[in-house]
Amino acid sequence: MPEIRKDPIFERWVIVAPERSKRPQDYVVAKDEKKERECPFCEGNEGLTPPEIMAFRVEGSVKNSPGWWVRVVPNKYPALSAKEDVTEKNEGLYTFMGGAGTHEVIIESRFHRVGLDSLDRCQIGEVFRSWRERLLELRKDDRLKYIQIFKNVGAAAGASLEHTHSQIIGLPLVPPTVSVEIEAIKKYYSVHGKCILCEMVSQEIKIRKRVILRGKHFLCFSPFAARFPFEMWVVPVEHGDDFALIDREQIDDLSAVMGTVLKKLSKLIENIPYNVVLHTCPVNVSREGVLFHWYIEILPRITVIAGFELGTGWFINPTPPELAAAALRDVPLD
Amino acid sequence: MPEIRKDPIFERWVIVAPERSKRPQDYVVAKDEKKERECPFCEGNEGLTPPEIMAFRVEGSVKNSPGWWVRVVPNKYPALSAKEDVTEKNEGLYTFMGGAGTHEVIIESRFHRVGLDSLDRCQIGEVFRSWRERLLELRKDDRLKYIQIFKNVGAAAGASLEHTHSQIIGLPLVPPTVSVEIEAIKKYYSVHGKCILCEMVSQEIKIRKRVILRGKHFLCFSPFAARFPFEMWVVPVEHGDDFALIDREQIDDLSAVMGTVLKKLSKLIENIPYNVVLHTCPVNVSREGVLFHWYIEILPRITVIAGFELGTGWFINPTPPELAAAALRDVPLD
Repeated sequence: MPEIRKDPIFERWVIVAPERSKRPQDYVVAKDEKKERECPFCEGNEGLTPPEIMAFRVEGSVKNSPGWWVRVVPNKYPALSAKEDVTEKNEGLYTFMGGAGTHEVIIESRFHRVGLDSLDRCQIGEVFRSWRERLLELRKDDRLKYIQIFKNVGAAAGASLEHTHSQIIGLPLVPPTVSVEIEAIKKYYSVHGKCILCEMVSQEIKIRKRVILRGKHFLCFSPFAARFPFEMWVVPVEHGDDFALIDREQIDDLSAVMGTVLKKLSKLIENIPYNVVLHTCPVNVSREGVLFHWYIEILPRITVIAGFELGTGWFINPTPPELAAAALRDVPLD
Repeated sequence: MPEIRKDPIFERWVIVAPERSKRPQDYVVAKDEKKERECPFCEGNEGLTPPEIMAFRVEGSVKNSPGWWVRVVPNKYPALSAKEDVTEKNEGLYTFMGGAGTHEVIIESRFHRVGLDSLDRCQIGEVFRSWRERLLELRKDDRLKYIQIFKNVGAAAGASLEHTHSQIIGLPLVPPTVSVEIEAIKKYYSVHGKCILCEMVSQEIKIRKRVILRGKHFLCFSPFAARFPFEMWVVPVEHGDDFALIDREQIDDLSAVMGTVLKKLSKLIENIPYNVVLHTCPVNVSREGVLFHWYIEILPRITVIAGFELGTGWFINPTPPELAAAALRDVPLD
C-alpha cells in the first residue's frame, strides 16, 4: 500500500511505493567501467593534481610527493573561483554574480580504494579530521557563507574518478537547503522550546524500527520520509550546530558508525553508488537566533531522479525506511 | 569564468561553470543496453499491459487489441492508488497520508520508437491531444489537486522501458514546485502588474541569444539559469494558465516546435537522455488570485545530480545556456 510521507524539517513529500520495488533489476548495480588512464589520486602520482593545499604527512616527507595519508588539492575543474566578484548584477529580469567561491578535493587514501567503506576506522577518522581542518581554515575568508562538504561514490552518484575522495565547495551565499533547515529548526523551537533534530533522535531511539546503529555519540537511522532506498542519517545525539567543533572522542565514534553502516550498505547491494552530504551551520553570518543541529546524510542512488521528481519536488521511494533499516541491521559484518 | 545565476521564478541558484565542460567524455553518451524481453508497448502486445483506459483508435477496432495510435493504460507499478485515503495522520513528529492518486502511462506510438523526437509532427500532435484529454478527464476527481505529466527518455533520465511513452501522476496536493511558481508569479504581478513568464518571453525574444526556435504561438529558449546543459523551455507566447485549454492550431505549432528542437537535441548528442516536464495550473483548488503561465521543460540528463546539488539545492551547469542555444540553433535538419 503506497503512503505519502512528509519530512518534518524540509516539508518534503515522499511517495513510499513498495509495489514498485518488485522489479528485481532495480537493485542490481553494474560495476562502473574501469577507466584505463592513470589515477591522479594514487600515491606517487602527486604531480597529476594541482599543488596540494594541505596534507597529513609523515614527518620529514615533502609537499606534493609520497608520504601523506590524507591530501587536499584544488579541484582541477573548479565550479567556483576565489578570484570572482560577489556583487549581484542584473540583466532585465535576471540576477547574477561572479562565480566566487572555492572548490577543493580531499583524497581520502593513498591507496586506490573506492568509497569510504573500504577504509579502516582509523583512516575514516583522519578523513573527518581533514574535514574539520578545512572547515576551520576556509571560514577565515569572510566572503564564504556556507561550506558544503560532500562525497560522490560511483558514476550514478556523480563521481568522475573512482579513487575515494570528498569535495568541499565554499559558497558566497547560504544555500536554500540550509536556509530551509534553519527556518524549520527555529519555527519548531519557538513552539516547543526544543530542537527538532534532538526530538527526532529521541523519537527514533524510542520506536527503534528505523534505527540501524547506535554509537555512544551518534545515531544512524533511516529517516521517516527517506527520499532514496536505504537512505541513512547519522546524527549526533547531543545537540551541536557546527561539525568543526567535533572532538577526538566524537570523531572516533563517528568513524566507527559511518564505517559500519557504509560497509553494511555495500555488502547489501554490491557496487551501490551513493552520496554523503554534510549538513552544518553557515559561517560568517550573524548567529543571532540561528539554531542548527549538524548531521550527515548517506544517499544511495539506485533510483533515478526523473521527470516526476524534477517537475514536482516530490520523491518516489520504493523501499519503506522501516524495511531498509531492518535489512541493514541484518547484514552481518565479518 | 564561472558565474552564479538566479532563476527569477524559482530563486534557484545555478553555477554556470564552463571550465568543467572541457572533459570530452562528459558529452559522450553510451546507448542503453537493449533489454531482450518483449516490449509491452508495441502494437500486438496489448495483453502485456493492464487494460486500456483510453485510446485513439481506428473506427471499429477493439479495445486492448491493435488499431490504436495512442494508448493510455494504468501504470503496472503505480506510485499512487485511487483507493487510498487522503486524510493526514500523525506519528509523533511525522505526518503522512494514504498514497492516494493516479498513475497512468501514455503509449505514444504503436511502433517501437525511442523518444518524442522519433515521431512525426502529426503523431506528436496526437500525443499532446491525449495529454489534454487525460487532464480534462482526471480533474473530474476532485481529490486530485495537481496532475503532473512528464516523460523520461533513456535510463539516466529514469526510463525503465525504451518505447516512447509519457506518464501522468495525479496528486492529492499541489506540489512545492508549482506552489513556488504560483507565489512567484503572484509576487511579480503585484509589483509590476504583468505575468513574469510573459515578460521573460518578451525579454528573450528581444535579446535573442538564448532563443532556439520561434513558432507562431510558442517560443523555445534555454533559460538564463538553466540547471542542465542544453535545457530548453517551450513557452506559449500568449498568456495561458491551463495546458488543457490548448486548441488545435496551438497543438499544431507546439508539435512542430517540440519535434524540431528535440530532433536537434538528439542530432547534437546521440542517445541523449532527457526528461520532458509539463508545468500547468493546479486543479480543484480555489482559482482566486491564482495566476499561472503553463510551459514545457526539456531537461537533458548528461550531468548528474550529485552530492553538491542534493546538499545545497544549487545546480552546476558546465554549458552556458547562450552556448547551448547557439549550438542547437546551428544543428541542421534534413
